[in-house]
Amino acid sequence: MNQQRIDRVLEGLQRHGMSQALVCDPLSIWYLTGYYTEPYERFLALYLTSRASEPTATLFCNRLFPDASACCGNVVLFSDTDDPVPLVTAACDHSSPLGVDKDLAARWLLPLMDAGAASAYLLASDVVDGVRSIKDNRERALMREASRINDEAMKWLAAQVREGVTEEQIASGLLGEYRRLGAQDHSFTPIVSFGANAADPHHEPDQTVFHKGDMVLFDVGCKYQWYCSDMTRTFFTAEPTAHQLEVYETVRRANEAAEAIVRPGVTFAEIDLTARHIIEEAGYGPYFTHRLGHQIGLVDHEPGDVSSSHDEPVQVGQCFSIEPGIYLPGDIGVRIEDLVIVTEDGCEVINHYPHDVCILEV
Amino acid sequence: MNQQRIDRVLEGLQRHGMSQALVCDPLSIWYLTGYYTEPYERFLALYLTSRASEPTATLFCNRLFPDASACCGNVVLFSDTDDPVPLVTAACDHSSPLGVDKDLAARWLLPLMDAGAASAYLLASDVVDGVRSIKDNRERALMREASRINDEAMKWLAAQVREGVTEEQIASGLLGEYRRLGAQDHSFTPIVSFGANAADPHHEPDQTVFHKGDMVLFDVGCKYQWYCSDMTRTFFTAEPTAHQLEVYETVRRANEAAEAIVRPGVTFAEIDLTARHIIEEAGYGPYFTHRLGHQIGLVDHEPGDVSSSHDEPVQVGQCFSIEPGIYLPGDIGVRIEDLVIVTEDGCEVINHYPHDVCILEV
Repeated sequence: MNQQRIDRVLEGLQRHGMSQALVCDPLSIWYLTGYYTEPYERFLALYLTSRASEPTATLFCNRLFPDASACCGNVVLFSDTDDPVPLVTAACDHSSPLGVDKDLAARWLLPLMDAGAASAYLLASDVVDGVRSIKDNRERALMREASRINDEAMKWLAAQVREGVTEEQIASGLLGEYRRLGAQDHSFTPIVSFGANAADPHHEPDQTVFHKGDMVLFDVGCKYQWYCSDMTRTFFTAEPTAHQLEVYETVRRANEAAEAIVRPGVTFAEIDLTARHIIEEAGYGPYFTHRLGHQIGLVDHEPGDVSSSHDEPVQVGQCFSIEPGIYLPGDIGVRIEDLVIVTEDGCEVINHYPHDVCILEV
Repeated sequence: MNQQRIDRVLEGLQRHGMSQALVCDPLSIWYLTGYYTEPYERFLALYLTSRASEPTATLFCNRLFPDASACCGNVVLFSDTDDPVPLVTAACDHSSPLGVDKDLAARWLLPLMDAGAASAYLLASDVVDGVRSIKDNRERALMREASRINDEAMKWLAAQVREGVTEEQIASGLLGEYRRLGAQDHSFTPIVSFGANAADPHHEPDQTVFHKGDMVLFDVGCKYQWYCSDMTRTFFTAEPTAHQLEVYETVRRANEAAEAIVRPGVTFAEIDLTARHIIEEAGYGPYFTHRLGHQIGLVDHEPGDVSSSHDEPVQVGQCFSIEPGIYLPGDIGVRIEDLVIVTEDGCEVINHYPHDVCILEV
């Protein structure tokens, strides 16, 4: 149990008029208790309450899961043949609103409502995610290390590009390289895109064969001791045309301008708009089809995105991606992505792989 | 679009008093439309309605997802900066109950409720899952092939056991073998357990080193053209003791007795109890700590388990696991698992790897 983190969540809940909540995200449960298991379709939840008469945290756990007693003093166990809904209902204060995890599935939420577990049901994940969003010093060190490994992995990726190789061949070798570098896993399915494939920002590596002259985009990340990295670079493999160079430099300028304005108090929307404005000015506005970035930590996409619709100010300790892109269908796609951590007076870019135009020798 | 499957779902909804539903499970959407994407935290839903004035199926899709127009005639697109809740609300009949996918997350369900999308919200996944549960001839052929590959993979696994090998070494080589055999992926993280590790039914492969004499448990499955296999075998690596043999033969008898009684009309609970009774009679009841099995198809664990609390009769075309086990902490764990498909007059066991006591030459 990390009582300090639990207390921060309970304080946040109270600011939103809630004295109790049900946390279901397994990584949030790990973050608050040190207990991790992936429940799949089974029920797993951490009930938090600020009622003085009750333990602050109770973990509802299937007997099939690993033993949680070392992590949480108050564990309610049940079997596959038990319905956990009455157990949770019994723990709840029926006359107060219940904060609900955004990931709580309808299969549990609707029966809890039917059972009258609480007086109202309010999304409470913003509170938990807000606490998770501010990385402490130890977490920042792990984020840096995950990105340092990712910088090294990008060198390895660039060295794999050669005539005849397929996207899938490069992608499938990356996990071994991550492990060699000390990471445990991918933080998401790696994107390896040759030529026009990069114009689909979510292209999945396939049997496409590399031919000299194709531009190459890598969007990859690893997990190091639970914490994620995420970086994109786009390479040339022949002298770029003026058109290619214009697109590349526009994206690079958008990335660097956005990174330059990050500091406490600036809003996520302002950061997005700084990059977006540069791409629009260059005439490519319609081809930057996604938000500028996303927060990151225990998962690659954490809540609170860097987009025009998110007008909260960034805070010291938050970590997010800056990843402008221009996608010209049938032609080229360029994206340049770094992770940044907000500092007292700006931000620390935790990727160090260069942004400069790079023509790979293939 | 598979209009026949959609019609079966709409008929099922109407039998439960619903004329509309929101399907969110990406594999159910694939099953009904042929469109697949993994939305992660983004919104993806198939709205179904039997109102004659409306298209029966409307897909709500983020613009970042692959194009769905080839799969679904009626697609509503939105961007990352749009809120999909008003779009879905506009499509719903506000004066009727809305069937809700069990996987619909609170982050969408609570705002839909606040927006007044429907007169009530009822879990409707049983209907969709019930349709998915009955495999047609083409699906049965794919399930058989996935299990045939799994039988072959079990031979490979048995051949990997040698002094000094670790669980993780064997587990990490399995995907390559599956692909060599024509499968696409694991259907779940493989379980490789040496010695007393097998007494934890959910043990994950680790650095445990094999020593001659350890019993070895493999619980593995692959995906072949979307369909999953899942099989467990437990091997000896030295002459078994009388105690080990008794446990093994008890589990084997439980497996075979359960498989022998499967036929249309027998309930899932009766199948579970048949196996459980044999284990209890042998005095190991408290050490069979989980349900007998689970349905399987597009995912390894599909709804409708084989347990004492599931008293519906099995139906022709349903496919599920029969996997009794005895787990003696600190000592040994034995599980023997097959998949069966219910036929007109019994069941077809689609795994063919033998159950006999097998002492591996190591």
